[in-house]
Amino acid sequence: MNGAKALIETLANCGVEVCFANPGTSEMHLVQALDSVPEMRSILSLFEGVCTGAADGYARMTGKPAATLLHLGPGLANGIANLHNARRARSPIINIVGNHPNFHTGLDAPLTSDIDTLARNYSSWIKTDSTSTTLAQDGANAFTASLRQTSGSAGQISTLIMGADAAWEKSAGIAKPNAFPQRAKVENCDVEAAAAAFNDKGKVMLLVEHHATSPEALIIASKISAHTGCRIVTGTFPARVEGGPNAPAIERLPYFPEQVLAMLSEVDQLILVGAQVPASFFAYQATPGLLVPENCTVSRLCRVEDDAIDALSKLASRLGASETSPILFEKKEIPKPAGGLNTKTVIQAVAATMPENLIVATDSGGGNAAYAYCQNSVPVSWLALTGGAIGQGSPVATGAAIACPDRPVLALLGDGGAAYTIQSLWTQARENLNVVTLIFANNSYNILNVEYSRLGVTEVGEVAASLFDMTNPKIDWVAIAKGFGIEGAYADTSEELCELLENAYENNGPFLIQANIKDRQP
Amino acid sequence: MNGAKALIETLANCGVEVCFANPGTSEMHLVQALDSVPEMRSILSLFEGVCTGAADGYARMTGKPAATLLHLGPGLANGIANLHNARRARSPIINIVGNHPNFHTGLDAPLTSDIDTLARNYSSWIKTDSTSTTLAQDGANAFTASLRQTSGSAGQISTLIMGADAAWEKSAGIAKPNAFPQRAKVENCDVEAAAAAFNDKGKVMLLVEHHATSPEALIIASKISAHTGCRIVTGTFPARVEGGPNAPAIERLPYFPEQVLAMLSEVDQLILVGAQVPASFFAYQATPGLLVPENCTVSRLCRVEDDAIDALSKLASRLGASETSPILFEKKEIPKPAGGLNTKTVIQAVAATMPENLIVATDSGGGNAAYAYCQNSVPVSWLALTGGAIGQGSPVATGAAIACPDRPVLALLGDGGAAYTIQSLWTQARENLNVVTLIFANNSYNILNVEYSRLGVTEVGEVAASLFDMTNPKIDWVAIAKGFGIEGAYADTSEELCELLENAYENNGPFLIQANIKDRQP
Repeated sequence: MNGAKALIETLANCGVEVCFANPGTSEMHLVQALDSVPEMRSILSLFEGVCTGAADGYARMTGKPAATLLHLGPGLANGIANLHNARRARSPIINIVGNHPNFHTGLDAPLTSDIDTLARNYSSWIKTDSTSTTLAQDGANAFTASLRQTSGSAGQISTLIMGADAAWEKSAGIAKPNAFPQRAKVENCDVEAAAAAFNDKGKVMLLVEHHATSPEALIIASKISAHTGCRIVTGTFPARVEGGPNAPAIERLPYFPEQVLAMLSEVDQLILVGAQVPASFFAYQATPGLLVPENCTVSRLCRVEDDAIDALSKLASRLGASETSPILFEKKEIPKPAGGLNTKTVIQAVAATMPENLIVATDSGGGNAAYAYCQNSVPVSWLALTGGAIGQGSPVATGAAIACPDRPVLALLGDGGAAYTIQSLWTQARENLNVVTLIFANNSYNILNVEYSRLGVTEVGEVAASLFDMTNPKIDWVAIAKGFGIEGAYADTSEELCELLENAYENNGPFLIQANIKDRQP
Repeated sequence: MNGAKALIETLANCGVEVCFANPGTSEMHLVQALDSVPEMRSILSLFEGVCTGAADGYARMTGKPAATLLHLGPGLANGIANLHNARRARSPIINIVGNHPNFHTGLDAPLTSDIDTLARNYSSWIKTDSTSTTLAQDGANAFTASLRQTSGSAGQISTLIMGADAAWEKSAGIAKPNAFPQRAKVENCDVEAAAAAFNDKGKVMLLVEHHATSPEALIIASKISAHTGCRIVTGTFPARVEGGPNAPAIERLPYFPEQVLAMLSEVDQLILVGAQVPASFFAYQATPGLLVPENCTVSRLCRVEDDAIDALSKLASRLGASETSPILFEKKEIPKPAGGLNTKTVIQAVAATMPENLIVATDSGGGNAAYAYCQNSVPVSWLALTGGAIGQGSPVATGAAIACPDRPVLALLGDGGAAYTIQSLWTQARENLNVVTLIFANNSYNILNVEYSRLGVTEVGEVAASLFDMTNPKIDWVAIAKGFGIEGAYADTSEELCELLENAYENNGPFLIQANIKDRQP
């Protein structure tokens, strides 16, 4: 058995079921191995950013790592923007990057570059020079590392860089899976410190992220909220939140720093539960970066790598809230909108037509604005743009659909972000995935118009205006969808949009809707 | 004057005329500066890989650096694959990457990442933490560094990473351009060593790359060839070669290692002129990586960073070849092909219809195979896929068209590579560039079929076959072109292809032709 076969069999034995691939010559033996291990499903994408974004979406929905198969430094580089988002989502992923053998690297062939350096940007685990005898164990270790919750800003992405000779040479055989890693439990002192915050008679807010936004964690947080009156808030762009009727009713931090400061100005005690201290998404001249008002005290119940369910259970027990009923979102009748399309009516159309158990993957554009409005519609999983690198939504939707073939998926994309990784549509067609892509077609990087005006510039010059403008030419997204093998349609009115959404959800396979919106609100 | 304005004015004064941009919030002050410096033309792309590839194409045609404007780590990451190609082309480029201010980085906002680490993969010059007072001088230094020929494998790409505060704070004003860097001259001993190779009565080959493929250098090399009978050969994927009738008649190294070895088996003395020792593009189990046969002696006339024109002049003088007439390609009548489309008839159609002074940008696919066939048609500039990172051809064609608005440009793309950076078409439409895109639509990563068979695998399994296959669904490139705002058409016969090419060259603006080829030859 060669190294490639030993690696793929080991990963399959660990529980890796999917490999999102765009291989090249240096990965041919890995392709051969994938051919012989039917437990691992291989999914081809036309661009590596689709592979890595899909692996992120898959991980958010399953909690398990998929593998990616990438071609040397440039193949990895093309996947980094979505690995950045995945790192921020703390998604487990195992990247397998083919390289020249060590004996070839010194010859400086055209594709030679420092791959290790690229991997350092986003990886929490890197193995640079696997050999055929270490490769299987390296794979098992990469799997474990991807699920071990580490501290600091690094996520849990593993990158295994292997010379082609490690794949083609004789291996020592399959490696046994390592023990499955467990999250750390919080100390009692942390629970006591958080509990003390409730004794100050001030207003308390729990800021929940990552493990603390899992359904079990949110139920407990909501019991604490019902018992104490505290607010439960996620970060601005949570990796995944289960919402909708009968899910815990929680809030979300807004985007702009003034909005966050205004929200937190009503808070005396901010308790971080797997969350970071709120910071401005960008730095501005006139507003602070750290968004904690002077009179707000910050404490921490648990770190991002800790077991938030355990931590919240202990806090609920300490506060006597374990038996309290949580506060849940209520089902409300959401009327279909009528008339012209703007951001508001598009969002209303989405909320009014959502099928049960929809997965929504957002990017830039109106996706985030839709969140609150959709929570009274149906049960929904919501996947936000965690790292700010646009071009996430379409790949993440693709991976989520692979992970959950029985659930409908909606990719809510701005047109700027959609243009980054639109090759996802081809993989959706190839795998006949139930992804409906809805593009907010305002023909603009509109957030930049907003940001530019925040500089205090009242007259936008010709060059600046042109750099935010996508009207010349306007992109025909339905034509692009056709090009990549999926059907699509334009919506110019709310009625058309609602009908297209309903039909798209009813039919099997992917579909794209271009919502021609007239306003320029973000 | 703030830092941004000082930087842009300094760069414009240095001679930077174009900025290929995809800005975000952290670059708003730079956008404002671009708005006020009309000497710098701003060109928007929908994806950063288009920006960096276009800067490469621009540099190959002008010898000058363009600027790119990129948005933090993910924006840079999206541009790295084509920066890798640009590094291999030794193209001067100045990347300006916006970042959070230092005081904001510690807050770990979503877009925070280690940008410096990414830049190390491809940069020969990096400035990480520019301030408003250093920014203008940093820009002047980045310009100089991009044109200073450095040794080793690094190209001459400069990356200037600047916090938004460096852009918005008060500057010390515009910086003066530095002295323009000069290439080093070779020592006489190098000339003598190369001249000695001609005295051995063996067969001599000059391997020319980079500065040694400039028109002036090739003329001198060709005089030496005419005088001594030596062969002149470029590397397999030269950054730019001027060819066609009345250009020096030179050869090119083939792609596969056995082919290179066969060619060099007839050579006793290999003289490197700005070139590397020939190495296999990939490593294989059964063939050597270093492609120099045992009886072939390698010497070096000049390094990649040296003045190759000077070095070749000295060698020609030493050999008494200065007054010899060079051997030039001859004009030949190339008949238009007839009947069905395959790689050969597509290449013949390209050669038969080429307009004078065409620029050809190739990627993977049939582009390289077309090279030799086109040298008897018309004067042509040929830009090859230097670094093996597919997705170069369309962006490089875009940048070449910006550089040379009066020349027609042909992007010769495989369908696999075209799918990487097809967003280029939108910029071509926006700027009304004279780029004809010809896609070899064989619906396959066909090189991988070839490479897989080289493993000795006779039966290609289902999974492997599916990973090389682009038929499910077949991509409709004309629809994608329409989506990005340019017209296109399908060619199923040689006659259709010739007519479409001729019409496309005659008309102003971009056009796409999908050549539906029936064979599967690389």
